[in-house]
Amino acid sequence: MRTESFVEKELSHDAFLGGRLRIAQPRAGYRAGIDPVLLAASIPARAGQSVLDLGCGSGIETLCLGARVPGLVLAGLEIQPAYADLARRNAVENGEALEVFTGDLTDMPGPLRQRQFDHVIANPPYFDRTASTPARDPGREHGMGETCALADWVTAAARRVAPKGQVTFIQRADRLPDLIPAMVAHLGSLEVLPLIPRQGRAARLILIRGRKGGRAEFRLHDGIRLHAGAAHGRDGEDYTPAISAVLRDAAGLPFPD
Amino acid sequence: MRTESFVEKELSHDAFLGGRLRIAQPRAGYRAGIDPVLLAASIPARAGQSVLDLGCGSGIETLCLGARVPGLVLAGLEIQPAYADLARRNAVENGEALEVFTGDLTDMPGPLRQRQFDHVIANPPYFDRTASTPARDPGREHGMGETCALADWVTAAARRVAPKGQVTFIQRADRLPDLIPAMVAHLGSLEVLPLIPRQGRAARLILIRGRKGGRAEFRLHDGIRLHAGAAHGRDGEDYTPAISAVLRDAAGLPFPD
Repeated sequence: MRTESFVEKELSHDAFLGGRLRIAQPRAGYRAGIDPVLLAASIPARAGQSVLDLGCGSGIETLCLGARVPGLVLAGLEIQPAYADLARRNAVENGEALEVFTGDLTDMPGPLRQRQFDHVIANPPYFDRTASTPARDPGREHGMGETCALADWVTAAARRVAPKGQVTFIQRADRLPDLIPAMVAHLGSLEVLPLIPRQGRAARLILIRGRKGGRAEFRLHDGIRLHAGAAHGRDGEDYTPAISAVLRDAAGLPFPD
Repeated sequence: MRTESFVEKELSHDAFLGGRLRIAQPRAGYRAGIDPVLLAASIPARAGQSVLDLGCGSGIETLCLGARVPGLVLAGLEIQPAYADLARRNAVENGEALEVFTGDLTDMPGPLRQRQFDHVIANPPYFDRTASTPARDPGREHGMGETCALADWVTAAARRVAPKGQVTFIQRADRLPDLIPAMVAHLGSLEVLPLIPRQGRAARLILIRGRKGGRAEFRLHDGIRLHAGAAHGRDGEDYTPAISAVLRDAAGLPFPD
């Protein structure tokens, strides 16, 4: 747990969405890859709707979403005070309105408990700490390690989403056996969108979403390929056109109809 | 439940695997589509191994598998005596050795309970009868409707599979939220191979397999496309080359490494 705010020399300033966003993030702590950008791109939010990001870290997901869709009401919940501060600062520096609550998703701050959102999104920590070793940096550990169960993330999301609203997570594909039952317990109209590194490879990540009160059958969509070709290109920049448009031009990556 | 054997005029004789197999099946009852052929193609059985097909119907899965891989020890379990008879007849007429047990998978015949198999396969009924209406033909209803829960099929399969052996089911993709927890309760090294009607469409069917005692992480593979192009061709025969090779040339359709 990192409580005192980061100082300038601990931070890097990184461009996202082709330079539309500049995000300060700790050089040694949890650092955003493309995953939060893909999550934000998948959210079909419209102007006037509200969005809550559980475990918002430096704010990258909501700020990406706000950069693509103007007129959203954006909120985040972050347990580590230093990251919550960073998210507030990143919002200001990018000219976006983001309300950040500092607190625990299993024991939410009172003002947040009074609210419901059209979209709840999360990029929960990827590693089950019962089966792996912690990172040395404690802030990074909080972002990467699983301090509460995935089921708790889903329960918290389901509590904060409005009727007919959607909960969308990005997560490692190998966690689907935990995620699906957790989602089924609270949400309907479940959909999984696999993110396939390259044609023929197993999904590393999945986007999964459910609707509060939804009654449609479970759907497994055709996977989205992230990289073109069958092998890694020399320059490491061989994203497919759809993914390149997301990362460089702030395009959306909607779930298929 | 169909008990008395089919008479000749009730049957059609249909070619599978490019004419390598001729299967007698009731004109009005449960009729095999491509699903059992795809299931059989996905099984990495080797000569000398044993295979049990739960709910074998007219025997199409095991006979397809036997036609591709010589030297297997093939068995089937079928609750409807008329279909069990048909499977025995189809085996003889195709020159394959298939031992068919007549009985219920939740209360298996004694001799079957003594045995374990390297591969257990099943193409369980696709429709949850709590949410739909029964077919009028009672034999078709038994093949299509869900007379026992999917979890019972998985439990039965897990009992009959040898240590390190594999259980593989083909099933509607929308049943994954039921199938995954049922599989996780008994098997490890779970893998899902989506069958995608066409690029960009949601999976209609999935192949799912697990290994008894397996410890690998869950894997969600890139989907296999069944039809080429984005829309249905005029002749209805626009299978992708890989699927065409399975259906016409008895090729395998292995899970990716």
